[in-house]
Amino acid sequence: MSMRKICVVITARPSYSRIKTALKAIKEHPKLQLQLVVAGSALLGRYGNAVDYIESDGFKIDAKVFMVLEGENKTSMAKTTGLGVMELANTFYNLKPDAVVTIADRFETLATSIAASYQNIPLIHIQGGEVTGNIDEKVRHANTKLADIHLVASEDAKERVLKLGEDKDYVFNTGCPSIDIAFKVNQTPKLNFNPIEKYGGVGSNINWQNGYIVVMQHPVTTEYTKAKESVLSTLRAVHKLGIPTFWFWPNVDAGADGTSNGIRSYREIHKPRNIHFFKNMLPEDFLRLLINSQCLVGNSSVGIRECAYLGVPVVNIGTRQHGRARGVNVIDVSYEEEAIEKAIVDRVKQKRPIISDAIYGKGNSGEKIADILAEVELRFHKTISY
Amino acid sequence: MSMRKICVVITARPSYSRIKTALKAIKEHPKLQLQLVVAGSALLGRYGNAVDYIESDGFKIDAKVFMVLEGENKTSMAKTTGLGVMELANTFYNLKPDAVVTIADRFETLATSIAASYQNIPLIHIQGGEVTGNIDEKVRHANTKLADIHLVASEDAKERVLKLGEDKDYVFNTGCPSIDIAFKVNQTPKLNFNPIEKYGGVGSNINWQNGYIVVMQHPVTTEYTKAKESVLSTLRAVHKLGIPTFWFWPNVDAGADGTSNGIRSYREIHKPRNIHFFKNMLPEDFLRLLINSQCLVGNSSVGIRECAYLGVPVVNIGTRQHGRARGVNVIDVSYEEEAIEKAIVDRVKQKRPIISDAIYGKGNSGEKIADILAEVELRFHKTISY
Amino acid sequence: MSMRKICVVITARPSYSRIKTALKAIKEHPKLQLQLVVAGSALLGRYGNAVDYIESDGFKIDAKVFMVLEGENKTSMAKTTGLGVMELANTFYNLKPDAVVTIADRFETLATSIAASYQNIPLIHIQGGEVTGNIDEKVRHANTKLADIHLVASEDAKERVLKLGEDKDYVFNTGCPSIDIAFKVNQTPKLNFNPIEKYGGVGSNINWQNGYIVVMQHPVTTEYTKAKESVLSTLRAVHKLGIPTFWFWPNVDAGADGTSNGIRSYREIHKPRNIHFFKNMLPEDFLRLLINSQCLVGNSSVGIRECAYLGVPVVNIGTRQHGRARGVNVIDVSYEEEAIEKAIVDRVKQKRPIISDAIYGKGNSGEKIADILAEVELRFHKTISY
Amino acid sequence: MSMRKICVVITARPSYSRIKTALKAIKEHPKLQLQLVVAGSALLGRYGNAVDYIESDGFKIDAKVFMVLEGENKTSMAKTTGLGVMELANTFYNLKPDAVVTIADRFETLATSIAASYQNIPLIHIQGGEVTGNIDEKVRHANTKLADIHLVASEDAKERVLKLGEDKDYVFNTGCPSIDIAFKVNQTPKLNFNPIEKYGGVGSNINWQNGYIVVMQHPVTTEYTKAKESVLSTLRAVHKLGIPTFWFWPNVDAGADGTSNGIRSYREIHKPRNIHFFKNMLPEDFLRLLINSQCLVGNSSVGIRECAYLGVPVVNIGTRQHGRARGVNVIDVSYEEEAIEKAIVDRVKQKRPIISDAIYGKGNSGEKIADILAEVELRFHKTISY
Repeated sequence: MSMRKICVVITARPSYSRIKTALKAIKEHPKLQLQLVVAGSALLGRYGNAVDYIESDGFKIDAKVFMVLEGENKTSMAKTTGLGVMELANTFYNLKPDAVVTIADRFETLATSIAASYQNIPLIHIQGGEVTGNIDEKVRHANTKLADIHLVASEDAKERVLKLGEDKDYVFNTGCPSIDIAFKVNQTPKLNFNPIEKYGGVGSNINWQNGYIVVMQHPVTTEYTKAKESVLSTLRAVHKLGIPTFWFWPNVDAGADGTSNGIRSYREIHKPRNIHFFKNMLPEDFLRLLINSQCLVGNSSVGIRECAYLGVPVVNIGTRQHGRARGVNVIDVSYEEEAIEKAIVDRVKQKRPIISDAIYGKGNSGEKIADILAEVELRFHKTISY
Repeated sequence: MSMRKICVVITARPSYSRIKTALKAIKEHPKLQLQLVVAGSALLGRYGNAVDYIESDGFKIDAKVFMVLEGENKTSMAKTTGLGVMELANTFYNLKPDAVVTIADRFETLATSIAASYQNIPLIHIQGGEVTGNIDEKVRHANTKLADIHLVASEDAKERVLKLGEDKDYVFNTGCPSIDIAFKVNQTPKLNFNPIEKYGGVGSNINWQNGYIVVMQHPVTTEYTKAKESVLSTLRAVHKLGIPTFWFWPNVDAGADGTSNGIRSYREIHKPRNIHFFKNMLPEDFLRLLINSQCLVGNSSVGIRECAYLGVPVVNIGTRQHGRARGVNVIDVSYEEEAIEKAIVDRVKQKRPIISDAIYGKGNSGEKIADILAEVELRFHKTISY
Repeated sequence: MSMRKICVVITARPSYSRIKTALKAIKEHPKLQLQLVVAGSALLGRYGNAVDYIESDGFKIDAKVFMVLEGENKTSMAKTTGLGVMELANTFYNLKPDAVVTIADRFETLATSIAASYQNIPLIHIQGGEVTGNIDEKVRHANTKLADIHLVASEDAKERVLKLGEDKDYVFNTGCPSIDIAFKVNQTPKLNFNPIEKYGGVGSNINWQNGYIVVMQHPVTTEYTKAKESVLSTLRAVHKLGIPTFWFWPNVDAGADGTSNGIRSYREIHKPRNIHFFKNMLPEDFLRLLINSQCLVGNSSVGIRECAYLGVPVVNIGTRQHGRARGVNVIDVSYEEEAIEKAIVDRVKQKRPIISDAIYGKGNSGEKIADILAEVELRFHKTISY
Repeated sequence: MSMRKICVVITARPSYSRIKTALKAIKEHPKLQLQLVVAGSALLGRYGNAVDYIESDGFKIDAKVFMVLEGENKTSMAKTTGLGVMELANTFYNLKPDAVVTIADRFETLATSIAASYQNIPLIHIQGGEVTGNIDEKVRHANTKLADIHLVASEDAKERVLKLGEDKDYVFNTGCPSIDIAFKVNQTPKLNFNPIEKYGGVGSNINWQNGYIVVMQHPVTTEYTKAKESVLSTLRAVHKLGIPTFWFWPNVDAGADGTSNGIRSYREIHKPRNIHFFKNMLPEDFLRLLINSQCLVGNSSVGIRECAYLGVPVVNIGTRQHGRARGVNVIDVSYEEEAIEKAIVDRVKQKRPIISDAIYGKGNSGEKIADILAEVELRFHKTISY
């Protein structure tokens, strides 16, 4: 029997981190052949050069697809997606995969879904059924409706995908592969590197050895013009508290430049002495940094997902993770400076360890995904199940 | 109060016929301003020049969007859609509508949905919730998940959209505007024109005055290579029966050329004396032709929808209308020549009139749609309702 | 030494015919590796399926590029070219050729030139320096200015390319490869097949055995709306004369549908009994058909080029071949019906054989081209030579 | 008589500065109506937000065209151009200009030329006939061959355009509009603002009041990978000399990020105390800054053009201005650190004022351009003039 060609499309750095153990498991599975497409912001230096990490992790890239349109607005998100459909249609036409994998809910993932489903290539959606409440959620559920097979990350999500009219024989709860990495890192949790020495970054050379917090705050798409304002609240709160802080730049989105410019201008003017800025970090190093931190601040899904498993306290700001199942480790706050400040103080004082919560899996998701991809019937013809 | 700008995107001739009375009602509504975008195959001569009918019906076109890529395969469907996203994103950026309307389930309607929703323009989907069982259905439900407001054509469809997790305050059963035209035509049902004199067409000058049937058979997207074979079965059956027949060419799709070439080559070789071919017809004339016919043969949704209301017997071939609620007027058959032949004989003998079935509305859908568009809250932020 | 990878882009049926012997010579050259890209209308059934001939001639196609936008107007020519740049940029990025070959002057050839030159891939232009007097000529000379190496078809053309500021060390008169085929066919000039039996076609089953003429008339881009009118003049003249005629459909261009529709409607209405229509023919068969014809009518470059070499009388209509060196075999006429009629009568009476004229080469162009490609310095950095 | 609609496409900040007085003259001309299209990097914050200056100068923008593809490589230059053709074809289709103006030689200007010429819109090329020796020169001359009317900046350039086969009745030496601004600024040459107070910028707060130099160094496209290395040579030389320096970031190009990253990393590591960095400046302020400087260093065309007129000493580095007529104010050097250092020392010592050189006009180019556009025959059909 010839191997099934599974084409996975990575369009952004965080998607890669989330899917990495599944990629490895697919690559090593005797019945599967991995076709890896790296596209969109995952190819671009100013969004963290995910492509370099992918290659240095030993993956062979079958196609690189440049599709990001500059524009600093929502129109460019739409046009990037349109261009992505055109480019990925070509890519799949040439690679002739047996199935295509699209991941989660970023706007450009719909390009993968259209390019595959319109060409009658069985489409597998990873991490459907979650709730976030803005364009991301629309995209996620649209991906579900175009997809033939669903690999979801929690029971909660599975139930939602079934309600969306999908056939239960094609919906599988595999957990989230990001937990696989957290699981492995958690075996040897000690911080085994000096972050500033290893990653450089800019800003103050903070004294982090006696405790620090981590901030990662992304722009929220539907509040485009407020992106700058929102990040400034967090900056002022963190600056005022004076706790040594590692701050990570956001990834691309409409509004990324609002957030990035907010951070950049605050830095230039106020030169906050307790904050050091990084562009990005190897996922394993990032998780170890979190395990050893006093808390994570911002709106990253890492706070909801990996930190639940790892028992790291989280201050979750705003609506970005709205509606997702969360563990006891999380406090939700609005964009108000005082609320953020108060919540950070609360979380830093939180008695450790917090109990680990396995809602997003137990560390074997990558293998589960590969096994299902090897065995599931690859259909491309479906109808609603009610 | 300034008028709401409602931007409707027409991408194909049949979509226009279906939505026409709603366009008129929007145009005439005191609180609404119609922005009309004509795109895709609706602009092209070889798909029936819908644009000419639109203009001769008195509509002003605000933008024409050329986006159809030649290719005669499924890849070009995907690329047409990608290009459509890019072009329509520009169009909406310039027209600045208060809401955008996307219609039904053709592959390129997803371009309208992405271009609007990604730019946070409230998206209204007309005719969600129906079941067809191939890529069209995937597209239809993906449109539903991107849309903020839903105007469906039947109770059946409404229930399905609610199950898909949409908020009941934003789902309205308006019936199908195509029934409005059928309603009006049915007031004066007599055939008041000579089809061949008025529309020319090609093929034999058939003697239709003593009874005739009508054929309209579209290619089915997921059965691309079989398009030719399928249409040949119907051609042979119709040819053999010898009943005077008006045959309408299919509209564009991957495979259109399979179907078209099938028809063309059969014509050249067999010169069937009982068949006359038309490219297209004014909707009112077409409906009057149906009312006075012995039956409709093929896989057009007109058979399911208008013919149910008008009580015209229908032989529905193959899977294209699979899963849609149908009236007693319809017999379903496979692609087999004998089965088609037998079903036509049966339907032609059917005692008339067949009872009219109002599942798709009663003739006032256009106005209902305009009224809702004038009053509904235009939101663009939603979340799943379970 | 590794072989030079020469990437040739074929975008239309006539370009293939013209370049075929060069492709063969490149493929067989010990120092060259042919990379063949088939794009644009060369992939499409309604423009003659050049791709099928290419494959049946034994060439392996490295990439197929769908880029033709439907639109039936000049805007779609521009957009097709824009899309071509995007697609071909990808193609060259992946194929990594040592040089790219762009051919002649069709509008979309500029896409090849931009995609190559902007990526610093040495660009070779075949058939620069000729004069035609409309957008084609603009395109041809723009190709020259983007190209690094020039393989021209006549001394006349060479002189013009040099005047355009190109360095004489990179301009070579190779003659036209189309003459290679004419040369070979002319060794065994007898008509060795029955055209209607072999190619089918539509229209009257004419009695060609005792003499016939051949018509091939393309639309002239800058006279878009006149395309239909122009072809009707020729149709009326040819119809009136009653000489058995083989008529070839035109290839794609803005206006193609004007010409095609003109022919189609004339056929339906007048059913001219002396005309048989073909879509296309193997180049060798077409040349043999010409050799045995009484004359060629229309505006094809075959009349100027191959027919000069073969000594076939030509009635050249209108401005399309304006400014090109021509032999004694040609009479030029306007689009007037009477003028065309008169010229055909004159040419048919022309005493044969007409003297052969070798201005476009002597039958070894393909090999010359391959030899130059194997030896010339492949540069991509040039400056104007005055 | 209705006014001629002249559509000018601005794709980058430097193009705007260069053409500004012509835009004003067109806008104010009684026989002309200006249609202004702002496209490409002129719309983007990280390339200096030219769009803001354009609007604050009182120009109304008729269309904004987002077309820049991210990619940080030469492939994205090609794809940006392809997308530009598609977008601009739409724009011209909707604006229906009587003529389109394309400017100079940036890679994306060819998109303007194709979109106009393929739609038979008369194309006017400004600043043809100049020599630079890389892809820019290829693009410039290709623009010339697509254009119908030529407005060149010097006698030298005029002669070259004529040699390229253009008809002398359609080639006009108008001088360069950038000299108009220089002319006006030179009336009141005193530095009437504090650069750091007015423009912010980053880096050391240098003591410029007693003399300073200005640096502006762009990446050279065909030496993509060397962009970083080249700028580092200049940085080291300038840093070592210790003269107070205003350094301007480069505009976009493949390699822009090499240059930008080179500057950014040097700044972070060496924190050069004598250098202050600006993103951009109002053209008038920039010229006044140059007039009062000791010399300009880098490879900007301002050194060749405006500085010749203003008599400002220039150290011109590398090949970017290769082959352009230059005044006595310029010293040319290679990319070597020592050579640059030595040349700066020489130029700073240069006795002032240097004689002004009017090769690029005398200050009335904008008006000359408008007058010609109002009177010239707008043709779109041309042929080579030899």
